[in-house]
Amino acid sequence: MDAIESAIASVAGTSVLNRTSDPDHNRSVITFAGHREPVIEAALRAAAKAVELIDLNFSRGIHPRVGALDVLPFVPLGGASMEDCVEVAHAAGRRIWSELQIPIYFYEAAALRPGRANLEDVRRGQFEGLREAALIDPSRAPDLGGPALHPTAGAIIVGARKLLVAFNINLNTADLSIAKAIAKSIRASSGGFPAVKSLGLPLASRGMVQVSMNLTDFERTPVHVVYREVERLAALHGVTIAGSEIIGLMPRKAIEMAFADTVKLSSFSAQNVLENRLDALTLK
Amino acid sequence: MDAIESAIASVAGTSVLNRTSDPDHNRSVITFAGHREPVIEAALRAAAKAVELIDLNFSRGIHPRVGALDVLPFVPLGGASMEDCVEVAHAAGRRIWSELQIPIYFYEAAALRPGRANLEDVRRGQFEGLREAALIDPSRAPDLGGPALHPTAGAIIVGARKLLVAFNINLNTADLSIAKAIAKSIRASSGGFPAVKSLGLPLASRGMVQVSMNLTDFERTPVHVVYREVERLAALHGVTIAGSEIIGLMPRKAIEMAFADTVKLSSFSAQNVLENRLDALTLK
Repeated sequence: MDAIESAIASVAGTSVLNRTSDPDHNRSVITFAGHREPVIEAALRAAAKAVELIDLNFSRGIHPRVGALDVLPFVPLGGASMEDCVEVAHAAGRRIWSELQIPIYFYEAAALRPGRANLEDVRRGQFEGLREAALIDPSRAPDLGGPALHPTAGAIIVGARKLLVAFNINLNTADLSIAKAIAKSIRASSGGFPAVKSLGLPLASRGMVQVSMNLTDFERTPVHVVYREVERLAALHGVTIAGSEIIGLMPRKAIEMAFADTVKLSSFSAQNVLENRLDALTLK
Repeated sequence: MDAIESAIASVAGTSVLNRTSDPDHNRSVITFAGHREPVIEAALRAAAKAVELIDLNFSRGIHPRVGALDVLPFVPLGGASMEDCVEVAHAAGRRIWSELQIPIYFYEAAALRPGRANLEDVRRGQFEGLREAALIDPSRAPDLGGPALHPTAGAIIVGARKLLVAFNINLNTADLSIAKAIAKSIRASSGGFPAVKSLGLPLASRGMVQVSMNLTDFERTPVHVVYREVERLAALHGVTIAGSEIIGLMPRKAIEMAFADTVKLSSFSAQNVLENRLDALTLK
């Protein structure tokens, strides 16, 4: 991961903002930002380093994956629009396929085919299943390259999407059925909270289980609301929460929303935060 | 209040960051920021406008006060130190006394006499009591001017202090004894939370009562911790919380602390917030 982070950071005009790794997931997330061309170059170098160092045939972990570099989502920041990110995603995918011969699937706003908006649908079967399916089912073949996946690096799922909050809650139990039951209760696809994806996962190294979530619209379903519900559901099983973690970065607005709600502020906005007001000043 | 805010904003190099008013408190808080000289000038103009427009002999409200401009605290921001703020407080006090003939008390870090560190001690008796006391008890006379207070504007308590969080919780009851009992339980001076000052106050216009607090060190006693305890104590009286409010501005760190604790994040810092990381970038 150090080598991949260094490859990204070696591109002038790109900055690594955050990196997290989890031993049970056997997965790392690196967040980097920059303007269009440097970000595409950094993504290419990250993919090149990943294909050099990671062989999926020997990779084991509880988090689903189809590629050495598994998912490459572009998120609009600053003045960028979603359309900009779609264009960047397509350009990055084309460069990676043409220079590294790793097949590409496009997802979310960058999807080119029906049924590819959802990451889970593209990733179904993971590396081992998808490399078989892609050969026999044209609807599962890559958008660029293929139908055979890369023998060691699989494929890369490249997309453009809104900021999401990756939020995991660890339970003080090793009973995986409890995490799975809670994950099912809260996820949108089972009638739970809107804009919530969730899995129940074992954390073998910690002797616990985890409710692992993606909150794809934290303004619709905020972090603290999901937390409270997981806490309530866990209590019904007689289980407490060991702790939670944010994977990657948390948008400031989600934090301010949680605060205002937690202490029941009658009216609160970003304008009530000292530093937000100071940042807007031009006294200097 | 519009006229006072305009007087402050009329000084180039000063910005008004926030303003709040409460009808029951009959009190307004204006937060402004700037470099040394503009901030002193703005404070002088605010005091001049307050003495012109406010006559304490006809001012009624539930919040204690000794002056038309009651308290003028300077808080270090940016590269400023507490020593800088003490010096600014003394300079502002001298200018106000010499140009407007409003007597000055210095408090907290700017205090010049023992027994004047705490605002409540300086303000004891309020306008009506202090103007009598100052005449007969040298220990209660102003630091600048006096011993007679200004006949309509009283005195100004000028200080230098750390950021505090002014946080009020309104209860769904009109029973003042409940707010007073809760305020007593949580305040530092009665053995409650460290760095918490609190009063139980009636909110006649809303038919409620309020636990009105100053958290003078939000890292020691965070906002959400106080909220939870007030909620718990209110429940013992069978009372729920109607809502809460921040008076003035809230430091970002207090919000991040509350968030991390509320959702039990195992490790969380300002570095986990997207915008904090982006603010630190120099990509442009």
